[in-house]
Amino acid sequence: MLFSDVASYLKLELVGEDLELDSMNELSLSSSSQLAFATHKKYSSELSSSKAKAFLITNVLIEYLPKNSSYIICEDVSISMAQATKLFSKKPIEAGVASAKIGDNSYIDGMAKVENGAVIGSNVTILAGAYIGTNVHVGDDTIIYPNVTIYRDCVIGKECIIHSGSVIGADGFGFSHTNTGEHVKIYQNGNVIIEDCVEIGANCAIDRAVFNSTIIRKGTKMDNFIHIAHNCDIGEHSVFVAQTGVGGSTKLGRNCVVSGQSAFSDHLSIAPFSTFTARSGVTKNITESGGVYSGFPLMSHREWKRLQVRIAKLNN
Amino acid sequence: MLFSDVASYLKLELVGEDLELDSMNELSLSSSSQLAFATHKKYSSELSSSKAKAFLITNVLIEYLPKNSSYIICEDVSISMAQATKLFSKKPIEAGVASAKIGDNSYIDGMAKVENGAVIGSNVTILAGAYIGTNVHVGDDTIIYPNVTIYRDCVIGKECIIHSGSVIGADGFGFSHTNTGEHVKIYQNGNVIIEDCVEIGANCAIDRAVFNSTIIRKGTKMDNFIHIAHNCDIGEHSVFVAQTGVGGSTKLGRNCVVSGQSAFSDHLSIAPFSTFTARSGVTKNITESGGVYSGFPLMSHREWKRLQVRIAKLNN
Amino acid sequence: MLFSDVASYLKLELVGEDLELDSMNELSLSSSSQLAFATHKKYSSELSSSKAKAFLITNVLIEYLPKNSSYIICEDVSISMAQATKLFSKKPIEAGVASAKIGDNSYIDGMAKVENGAVIGSNVTILAGAYIGTNVHVGDDTIIYPNVTIYRDCVIGKECIIHSGSVIGADGFGFSHTNTGEHVKIYQNGNVIIEDCVEIGANCAIDRAVFNSTIIRKGTKMDNFIHIAHNCDIGEHSVFVAQTGVGGSTKLGRNCVVSGQSAFSDHLSIAPFSTFTARSGVTKNITESGGVYSGFPLMSHREWKRLQVRIAKLNN
Repeated sequence: MLFSDVASYLKLELVGEDLELDSMNELSLSSSSQLAFATHKKYSSELSSSKAKAFLITNVLIEYLPKNSSYIICEDVSISMAQATKLFSKKPIEAGVASAKIGDNSYIDGMAKVENGAVIGSNVTILAGAYIGTNVHVGDDTIIYPNVTIYRDCVIGKECIIHSGSVIGADGFGFSHTNTGEHVKIYQNGNVIIEDCVEIGANCAIDRAVFNSTIIRKGTKMDNFIHIAHNCDIGEHSVFVAQTGVGGSTKLGRNCVVSGQSAFSDHLSIAPFSTFTARSGVTKNITESGGVYSGFPLMSHREWKRLQVRIAKLNN
Repeated sequence: MLFSDVASYLKLELVGEDLELDSMNELSLSSSSQLAFATHKKYSSELSSSKAKAFLITNVLIEYLPKNSSYIICEDVSISMAQATKLFSKKPIEAGVASAKIGDNSYIDGMAKVENGAVIGSNVTILAGAYIGTNVHVGDDTIIYPNVTIYRDCVIGKECIIHSGSVIGADGFGFSHTNTGEHVKIYQNGNVIIEDCVEIGANCAIDRAVFNSTIIRKGTKMDNFIHIAHNCDIGEHSVFVAQTGVGGSTKLGRNCVVSGQSAFSDHLSIAPFSTFTARSGVTKNITESGGVYSGFPLMSHREWKRLQVRIAKLNN
Repeated sequence: MLFSDVASYLKLELVGEDLELDSMNELSLSSSSQLAFATHKKYSSELSSSKAKAFLITNVLIEYLPKNSSYIICEDVSISMAQATKLFSKKPIEAGVASAKIGDNSYIDGMAKVENGAVIGSNVTILAGAYIGTNVHVGDDTIIYPNVTIYRDCVIGKECIIHSGSVIGADGFGFSHTNTGEHVKIYQNGNVIIEDCVEIGANCAIDRAVFNSTIIRKGTKMDNFIHIAHNCDIGEHSVFVAQTGVGGSTKLGRNCVVSGQSAFSDHLSIAPFSTFTARSGVTKNITESGGVYSGFPLMSHREWKRLQVRIAKLNN
């Protein structure tokens, strides 16, 4: 898509030369063929060092643009960015893609739906009512139970098990907000990558990234009702007990253990080998590996146990 | 249905003239063709002013009946009411209804099920495994992702997005309880109305009303795993973050923001522009708009932050 | 399967005579045709009195074996046991089973999938997108709503209602853990038994047992998003409000009432007629029936209310 087409769609003016753009991305990750955006002065140094050549910015950020940039000045970059994501979004399914490829010895029930462009490995089992979207890849020896949904462009590794009712790759929850209280959808143009040997319980939901990928690394095991928001990166061999949620862009190191009904805020970084007891509410980064935590607000498990004793004494 | 048929079914006596009844409703909302019921003396004034002409009541309420009422005296109105809802309930699907109507340019996958009587607008996308029940209406430009279920008689607006695994219109959770500890189902004879521009995440559940409608007003956005119980009324442009639940008949004003794992009791009224931080537990009405709340029991967010500091000091 | 085949698969030595084994089970429940295992010295007396004849044990437990036992000494019984469960596991669907039997007056939508070996009673309704696995039994007058999944070998009683998106019989969440932090799947070779007159809301998940059965007893009613882990035994006429979870092997007595977002740890025993208010977190057995509880850590509801008042005063 031409940058000038974006400008037309937004009804805003393009400054600089026109460019061919293939997608959008965050400022720090954008390549020269991607549309970047900067919403706030705190991103001025990221802006200066960006590899992108096309930007949506506010007036006050012009001076920080890399040389020879093309840009659109937006009254509200957040709204314009959201509107632009629609231009780069894909349809739920795609016409004109080659038929799905199915590997040897795979069983795909006649009542499962595999969209065109999908690539299914060998010895895969896909049961009735499962949905495999456009261009989805499923690795060898994986089992997809009935009524699982895998949205387009997601990647499932080898020897995975995905239980019924789980949804892989639905839109992450992202909106920009107008002055009048309406919410403008930020189209979620990324995908989900599930590595090898991952097991996902019943009725989980792992959302696709806004840009790039939500990643579940190899060997991780999830119980039922796990919510993983867009752009999370879940470390290898982690364990999630039922009804736990992880906010957007949060990154867990390997071998974390998360007990039931716990939750993580967005944009956190959690050290490997961290353990969280039931109903932990994690709102801050954890930098030291191997700790055991509890409570909301979160504290060390030892502290939490002592605190419960002291709280109980208030009743004396 | 004749009121005398209800009496026969309940094996109780009809007092007054027989009447043709088309449905049941709450006392305060009943019309002259609806069967009403009053379980307790506290409803005596509602009973006196009711527009209904047919009642299930207890002995002690006879004196409060409007003139010329027909009625059945029940030993346990709650149980008799529950039994009567079965008489007025509809089958999960309906035979003998006209074929579904599909608008122009709509894509309905051959592996989606659209029951008779459904009315689908134009430019609608319904993917494989989705279920559209008898008489459901779906507005223009709406996208229904795979394995969504919409029960009969529900109404979905224009430009809505409903993600996979979500269930619209399952029965609300309502039972009357016998002396011996059994639960008698109150059939849920209402529906769900979702207005325009609503987005519903993956694996949500929005229950149908017992009578009348559960309503999600325009522009509201829901993340994954949102539970909305029967007869809720969710205001325009509200936002629900993952794993949140709202109890039956609770009404939220417009532009409420509800963070993850929060919950609301039933029968609450929440002022518009209220914000609830993660894991809020709301058990009382909120009458003033624009507040920010936290905790369980709920308090202002400012109080909650101060309280957490004081609680932490107990450990010193 | 021969015990010697198990030994070969584990690459370990069989001591004693070879035996034909039909399944695995916990030590205390094993019959003479089942493979048992003992992981720790604390099980020595259970081991001595076991009816099993084939064991996976550690070196230190040899002296407690019943006379004439056959056994395999494992370096890590937990890992060997997990590996052995794979040998006894069944495929997700089974070829070579007789066609499903359908009772009179049952409606099975052409877009529902009923696997071979299933036995469906009379007057059953199974709507589009529902999945009924190999050898599943469904009792008379039961309604299975669209996009419900029932895994193989599960048993559903009469007059049950299962709402859309619910998953009955997905694998329980069980793994053994290696020294290097990997998780070895314990195959879940049991099933789920749902007795008569049970109603299960939308998007619930009731996991199959590792051995034997997860049981939901008659008349129990569940709201949406209820998680019941493997090997639970839920007493008659219990009530679960939305977003509640029960950990593995926990047993509730009859007529328990569990309010929203509550949770139970695993391996608990809860007395009948216990009531838990919203967000209860139950981590200990309850032996006295009829109590009302709140909070996490759990306490009596009366104590909890008093405690909240005292906590609030910390802010003065």
